[in-house]
Amino acid sequence: MPPFISHRRVEFSQTDMAGIVHFSNYYKWMEELEHDFFRSLGLKIMEQQPDGTYIGWPRVNASCHFQSPARYEDQIEGRLRVERIGFKSLTYYMEFWRGTQRIAYGRVKTACCICRADGTLSSIEIPKSILDQLHEMPAE
Amino acid sequence: MPPFISHRRVEFSQTDMAGIVHFSNYYKWMEELEHDFFRSLGLKIMEQQPDGTYIGWPRVNASCHFQSPARYEDQIEGRLRVERIGFKSLTYYMEFWRGTQRIAYGRVKTACCICRADGTLSSIEIPKSILDQLHEMPAE
Amino acid sequence: MPPFISHRRVEFSQTDMAGIVHFSNYYKWMEELEHDFFRSLGLKIMEQQPDGTYIGWPRVNASCHFQSPARYEDQIEGRLRVERIGFKSLTYYMEFWRGTQRIAYGRVKTACCICRADGTLSSIEIPKSILDQLHEMPAE
Amino acid sequence: MPPFISHRRVEFSQTDMAGIVHFSNYYKWMEELEHDFFRSLGLKIMEQQPDGTYIGWPRVNASCHFQSPARYEDQIEGRLRVERIGFKSLTYYMEFWRGTQRIAYGRVKTACCICRADGTLSSIEIPKSILDQLHEMPAE
Repeated sequence: MPPFISHRRVEFSQTDMAGIVHFSNYYKWMEELEHDFFRSLGLKIMEQQPDGTYIGWPRVNASCHFQSPARYEDQIEGRLRVERIGFKSLTYYMEFWRGTQRIAYGRVKTACCICRADGTLSSIEIPKSILDQLHEMPAE
Repeated sequence: MPPFISHRRVEFSQTDMAGIVHFSNYYKWMEELEHDFFRSLGLKIMEQQPDGTYIGWPRVNASCHFQSPARYEDQIEGRLRVERIGFKSLTYYMEFWRGTQRIAYGRVKTACCICRADGTLSSIEIPKSILDQLHEMPAE
Repeated sequence: MPPFISHRRVEFSQTDMAGIVHFSNYYKWMEELEHDFFRSLGLKIMEQQPDGTYIGWPRVNASCHFQSPARYEDQIEGRLRVERIGFKSLTYYMEFWRGTQRIAYGRVKTACCICRADGTLSSIEIPKSILDQLHEMPAE
Repeated sequence: MPPFISHRRVEFSQTDMAGIVHFSNYYKWMEELEHDFFRSLGLKIMEQQPDGTYIGWPRVNASCHFQSPARYEDQIEGRLRVERIGFKSLTYYMEFWRGTQRIAYGRVKTACCICRADGTLSSIEIPKSILDQLHEMPAE
């Protein structure tokens, strides 16, 4: 099963004085890739419930390995696989490619949570309506 | 009347590939200076009301003139004056200094608003409890 | 003459706890709009010269007026006009629209500069090769 | 041996629409903690050499586990230990505490590199002048 794919171009403001993309931006790309994936399934990453609370996906952990620096105007291809579907969490394996070169890879684990207006969070089981859209995508 | 003053040091992630601070960070400094100022008065920039709504201060406009580039590890002194107190808005005049050199200056106009849980905003008159803490600070 | 147009979708990380796009992101959008415009003309915003220096465009000033808050997943249309072509500087007038509603507008003035490896900048006259690509675009 | 410690207060622009600090900011805090640590030793994180190149420390990998969300105005204490000193790399173990509660922890591995003006990087052995300042700091 092929990974989900979306693209970004490196913006000037993402570079630092070393002339390369600041590493904190890869974690933003990871999240944008996750959100593009949800959107492709017709799902929302912050879904308001009838009672005014939101179902959201705060991060449990996130790691990234940097193999080759990205530079201004590079075209970056993000590839996402749902590595593990838990009762209350999802683990994604993600890669970033520039042409035929993989420049970074990593994992993000997210927890399905109720987000209340008072700012508190509680983890919940992933709703069936979301689960029905998801499939584990083992690497080929 | 002297301006309100607070300090920041330039972080590495705020630089760009030109080797200088990316200009978008000055607007963050402007906001941090405003928030430090509110905090110095015992005020909160997002104050929750008994009914669950917040009183907040979205920006109406913001401008900045850049006179000398800031670099990694520069010590920046922010200076804030409340230039105008309106019924529903505040206008700040701000300067950023590195030692004896002014490196940037600008203005921010903010509107006092009710922020509701459904994401809507409505401008309101500035509450008296806040107004009592504020004084216009004309340049000397 | 119609403005130059490019699009962005609001990313989750661009929102703040008020539930709307943090205003510092509009200045990043302004720059991305400028860079998209340069790219559309076959120009580079950081052009390396044979002697190793770069020709770049640091900001002289930038202002933005905020008319309606932008939210997560909003589709934003950026519109750019070159308002004034000076000997050493360019002034852009920019607008951001969501559908038929203008949500923000402002101006950015940039200076054509030599950027050296030691981090110093000097303003220069805009090279003819760049000037030949630019035209003032008065509002209709 | 106690960890190196430095503090940050959560800024408004670091929050997102879920009302909590966006996770990408923890990686910036990790870097700022590393830089504060270098500064405390009299070292620079981007040290210019006589030949105009820089010695810098690009990230090899970085991971973070999020245990409790941080919110606007929280006081965050960062704690850093040098977990491993390699020939060409350093591995840091870092924790973030709010009062008596640990809210996040993770690791960053950095590689000592020559950064050239043309933007290329090469890993090098850590110079003795830097090595002399560093000691592995095992957890107590």
